[in-house]
Amino acid sequence: MRMVPKLTLMDADSIMRACFKKAGEIGVDMDIAITDDGGNLILFKRMDNARITSIDIAMGKSFTASAARKSTRAYGEISVPGKPAFGINTSNQGKFSIVAGGLPLFAGEQIVGGVGCSSGTPDQDEIVAQAGVDAFLMMQNY
Amino acid sequence: MRMVPKLTLMDADSIMRACFKKAGEIGVDMDIAITDDGGNLILFKRMDNARITSIDIAMGKSFTASAARKSTRAYGEISVPGKPAFGINTSNQGKFSIVAGGLPLFAGEQIVGGVGCSSGTPDQDEIVAQAGVDAFLMMQNY
Amino acid sequence: MRMVPKLTLMDADSIMRACFKKAGEIGVDMDIAITDDGGNLILFKRMDNARITSIDIAMGKSFTASAARKSTRAYGEISVPGKPAFGINTSNQGKFSIVAGGLPLFAGEQIVGGVGCSSGTPDQDEIVAQAGVDAFLMMQNY
Amino acid sequence: MRMVPKLTLMDADSIMRACFKKAGEIGVDMDIAITDDGGNLILFKRMDNARITSIDIAMGKSFTASAARKSTRAYGEISVPGKPAFGINTSNQGKFSIVAGGLPLFAGEQIVGGVGCSSGTPDQDEIVAQAGVDAFLMMQNY
Repeated sequence: MRMVPKLTLMDADSIMRACFKKAGEIGVDMDIAITDDGGNLILFKRMDNARITSIDIAMGKSFTASAARKSTRAYGEISVPGKPAFGINTSNQGKFSIVAGGLPLFAGEQIVGGVGCSSGTPDQDEIVAQAGVDAFLMMQNY
Repeated sequence: MRMVPKLTLMDADSIMRACFKKAGEIGVDMDIAITDDGGNLILFKRMDNARITSIDIAMGKSFTASAARKSTRAYGEISVPGKPAFGINTSNQGKFSIVAGGLPLFAGEQIVGGVGCSSGTPDQDEIVAQAGVDAFLMMQNY
Repeated sequence: MRMVPKLTLMDADSIMRACFKKAGEIGVDMDIAITDDGGNLILFKRMDNARITSIDIAMGKSFTASAARKSTRAYGEISVPGKPAFGINTSNQGKFSIVAGGLPLFAGEQIVGGVGCSSGTPDQDEIVAQAGVDAFLMMQNY
Repeated sequence: MRMVPKLTLMDADSIMRACFKKAGEIGVDMDIAITDDGGNLILFKRMDNARITSIDIAMGKSFTASAARKSTRAYGEISVPGKPAFGINTSNQGKFSIVAGGLPLFAGEQIVGGVGCSSGTPDQDEIVAQAGVDAFLMMQNY
């Protein structure tokens, strides 16, 4: 066996708070999901005017970012027709998201989870997810 | 058209807080899900020692209680072999839960959502869900 | 964050070897799956005369034992009609197994994974899974 | 009836060993799946730093290569928009993979199985799968 760091609900709550702050700043109601290193959900919140379809999309982005250790935007770029990962989004029962807005959470080199946002444009979604990642990095420096 | 009351994320946060308080009192880490009247997820939290399988189960209980407007325990009682709802739990892609721990949220006669808890015994799960329902009823009296 | 032990492929290989030894002793070809603490597959082997249906069943047992932290037999006992968990096996997209043959792997109090066996009778399946668990406990004492 | 050759677990173990050797040489931890002529899993291994999402992807590649008797790369080429197989990857519950890294195993003209690798780039995945195929061809010459 080896020892690995594990995200707690308290960590997830702090990340969520930073995402909410940013979503408020840009004025877009969001669905936000946070998963652990195994891709399993820890925390999910849907703001009052966020989309219903984005419940599943936010979870898919968060799952993908944590379980594939890469941003969903990066997967999107290599998944257009003619690129090597084209078609990858039908894997994992369709949960593999290639739409921007999912970011991995690392503790040093070690993957510990992911944040997925949906309901704005993919660019807006990623800005909100990034605020969560930034807060998480800040937390680790204290 | 008609006007219907709609659960907000703020409502869900208050319900969740009451569930957490009760889970702390009985000393069991839980997965807790809160859905709206459409059966769609608003809020989900997994405590650090709650079960991974209970992520889906808590969501299923919450979905069922809100979308079928009845406690999952009540469905469990009429779903044993020979009873009229036997087999109902395979419907809705298996999300129809007949295990106690899912309770509907009403505003008067009107369904507005559901709470689903999982990770303890079904009895413990229902106690925690009930604490959420009680808090919601209290909120309506103010 | 908190630090938790994580099962390695080398651990899983050792557990698998012990299961194979026991399956050979009782003379039954098996499908055997080993998952980590997040319920995600690490290792799977199907012996030449093991059942095709048992590929999925072994994986479901292993998933359930690790992600619910309990033997699938224990879930089976509380899932007969009239018991509190009746109907729980339709959750988790039907991957929640209540058939004996899935056992959790603990490192002290901490869940680290699960073993699931299928293709014999459920009693035989559990004997083979138990051989894997025993080997894992032995490994921890060295 | 007719007699057909059937891959054994011992064959699969040898193929896996060759894949592991190559993955070590190129320095990428992989998820590797080997299926029989029916598309059914015989053997699966996830290395310690391989991706969680690649569990399903490796299985999908292996399934596709064996059950469609063609490399997943070849399917990728004819599945871009405007080409005849465009959209084929949503079939078979999304398990039909069109991402390189899945190769069929033939005994002469007869399909006997497939190897699927995932976690590197699709090119790296295919190199590792090819090492398995090469080893299998060598084995048949003895």
